[in-house]
Amino acid sequence: MALIVQKYGGSSVATPELIRQVAKRAIDTHKKGHQVVVVLSAMKGETDRLLALAHDMVREPEAREVDQLIATGEIASVALFALACQALGEKAKSFTGFQAGIQTDEMHQRARITGLDPARVRTELAKGRVVAVAGFQGLNEARDITTLGRGGSDTTAVALAVALGADTCEIYTDVDGIYTTDPHICESARRMEKISFEEMLELSSLGAKVMEIRSVEFAMNYNMKIHVRHAHQPGGGTLICEEDSDMEKKPVTGVAYSKNEARITLTKVADQPGIAAKIMGIISKSGIVVDMIIQNQSAEIDPALGQPLTDISFTVPLSDYARAMEMMEGTAAEVKAARIVGTDNIAKISLVGVGMRNHAGVASQMFQTLANEGINISLISTSEIKISCIIEKKYTELAVRALHDAFGLGQATTDA
Amino acid sequence: MALIVQKYGGSSVATPELIRQVAKRAIDTHKKGHQVVVVLSAMKGETDRLLALAHDMVREPEAREVDQLIATGEIASVALFALACQALGEKAKSFTGFQAGIQTDEMHQRARITGLDPARVRTELAKGRVVAVAGFQGLNEARDITTLGRGGSDTTAVALAVALGADTCEIYTDVDGIYTTDPHICESARRMEKISFEEMLELSSLGAKVMEIRSVEFAMNYNMKIHVRHAHQPGGGTLICEEDSDMEKKPVTGVAYSKNEARITLTKVADQPGIAAKIMGIISKSGIVVDMIIQNQSAEIDPALGQPLTDISFTVPLSDYARAMEMMEGTAAEVKAARIVGTDNIAKISLVGVGMRNHAGVASQMFQTLANEGINISLISTSEIKISCIIEKKYTELAVRALHDAFGLGQATTDA
Repeated sequence: MALIVQKYGGSSVATPELIRQVAKRAIDTHKKGHQVVVVLSAMKGETDRLLALAHDMVREPEAREVDQLIATGEIASVALFALACQALGEKAKSFTGFQAGIQTDEMHQRARITGLDPARVRTELAKGRVVAVAGFQGLNEARDITTLGRGGSDTTAVALAVALGADTCEIYTDVDGIYTTDPHICESARRMEKISFEEMLELSSLGAKVMEIRSVEFAMNYNMKIHVRHAHQPGGGTLICEEDSDMEKKPVTGVAYSKNEARITLTKVADQPGIAAKIMGIISKSGIVVDMIIQNQSAEIDPALGQPLTDISFTVPLSDYARAMEMMEGTAAEVKAARIVGTDNIAKISLVGVGMRNHAGVASQMFQTLANEGINISLISTSEIKISCIIEKKYTELAVRALHDAFGLGQATTDA
Repeated sequence: MALIVQKYGGSSVATPELIRQVAKRAIDTHKKGHQVVVVLSAMKGETDRLLALAHDMVREPEAREVDQLIATGEIASVALFALACQALGEKAKSFTGFQAGIQTDEMHQRARITGLDPARVRTELAKGRVVAVAGFQGLNEARDITTLGRGGSDTTAVALAVALGADTCEIYTDVDGIYTTDPHICESARRMEKISFEEMLELSSLGAKVMEIRSVEFAMNYNMKIHVRHAHQPGGGTLICEEDSDMEKKPVTGVAYSKNEARITLTKVADQPGIAAKIMGIISKSGIVVDMIIQNQSAEIDPALGQPLTDISFTVPLSDYARAMEMMEGTAAEVKAARIVGTDNIAKISLVGVGMRNHAGVASQMFQTLANEGINISLISTSEIKISCIIEKKYTELAVRALHDAFGLGQATTDA
């Protein structure tokens, strides 16, 4: 007998009929002798409907009240799930976040789980009941309802799995696993059987939408295996777990891309200490998350000061682009930049793989592959298991396919 | 400075625009220097929408899960109200039932309030904030969400007003007060300035829909004045309070009617101890609430037993009529009744007034008035401040108008 936490997203519970199917699946698992905890998101569209009502009331609605409002969506889902179980002759009980013992910090709309006392969940499991817990929400110390931000239901599921000492945490979604790259733009994209937490973290942070980064971090910290599966199709899915000898031994396991960034360059800035810090300080104070920062060495010398000059480039989320450009108007004068050049006509292409650690030459093969296709690289950044390049947006799909081929990701291997 | 609890029903918060109007009204009161607590129902139609979802899942949904589901409606209302206040530049805070400290017993869907600790409400009021509390809901000892049943938001408002020591409890609804009778069928119906708790209780139990009976009981027990007013029109409304010398001194203050009952008669039952108890025992065990019970003396003698015979009649809610008739099939044989006669072609017409206590002759004037119109009375029941008659349904409006006239209810008087 195992204890299994299953999480279903909004599109898996979009209609009463789909909720019924989810209930059937949970009950099937339960009937095999397992204890089952189901974490649900709001029915697809419900959160947006509630947010629209909030924004109809006031342009920038108070976060506390937004949380109070939107947390109702997940509560409705779990109550309906319990009723669907009842219709199928199974005893189930639904819990809100606070009833399930989920405590969070004070940050509305992006709260972090600070404690979890699943006593009531345990009691009901011991009684042989299926338990449904509203995802995405908790209660802070002031006893206000909080929500965990985008992908919060995944975090709820992983945190519950950890707190309950579950054997596995199954994330049911509308894809059947993690792919070597986006199957929509690359025919030969292949589902992975297994992926390490570290690789999944990089893929998540690069915009692969299957799992939210925080829940992967949480799972990694507590070594909780995550099984990503399709909600309404059979199939093996992808296991996210600790790196093991069983894993594919290719240097690169996935190609990710993102079109949600913009690049800003300040040209001919004095190449002296403190300038980059000043620019980045202004950006980070405003809450904008900078992804890549590149400072190019320059041969040019400032004719007035006799100092070398440099260009500083960085990328920001597309949604913050206009705001960041505006901020730079003032800053450019301060740091005596010649020009500010911005563009949103870029894409970020990334290779991810724990194998990179031991394989030299991944970077050069990447650059060569892109060069062969006539694709110019404007920025590069690397981490231990990732290389990212900024290219012109129109080459995105071409670059993904070329890299996917070049690193042989279309074929499964057990040894490389 | 007064502390005022205002309750708005579902039709008063049916749309974002109406919620905005309600927020304006609360803020106006607040700006006059008062502390304001607003209790809200779910937006009109929302509870029905959620109930339909529940019944789509399973025919007889578990009460606990229904409560979990439908309580979200009121939470959405108060969060949106707080945001509407924000848009109007006022600081407001919303609370769910449990956040407002409302404890109830275990009875889902018709819980009773067992305790109320409004500490958080007090704290926010002290900070100068408008507080909005989700009506209709509480938390039981097991920390499950409960709902208070039909009219539950009225009860929430009155209970909060009592717990906070409010100066007054204002119930905003879609009528502008309590009328001497239904204005839809009697042109000369008149809004009352004041009505006693006792009279209001009788009117509520007789089917006048403005206030739910439990909230009136609660208010009476704690002597909390209730001011019934129109949500979106100015005007004086009706004050429900202790009987005082200021009240109208007519023997009758209101005429009520109900078409929601059915009458069942068992004919030629042995007139001996225990028979009525047996019949009523069966009905009450099934949870059906019997309103009037009449046992007619009969001259007839049972030829076999040599005992006198009698007819037993009683009324039940229309919704329980079929079930009650079915139960009587078996019982009729047991008590050797000659026949079971049932009809839903009846109406109950009632006169209510604390003045009846001191005025003889109200009953005879009522019977005479009905007789003058050719209306036959089939059952009569009385209490200290009420007389009810069952008549044929088609005479309902005629009877109401005739009695309203006969007792001079169309004219306000200060002395009678």
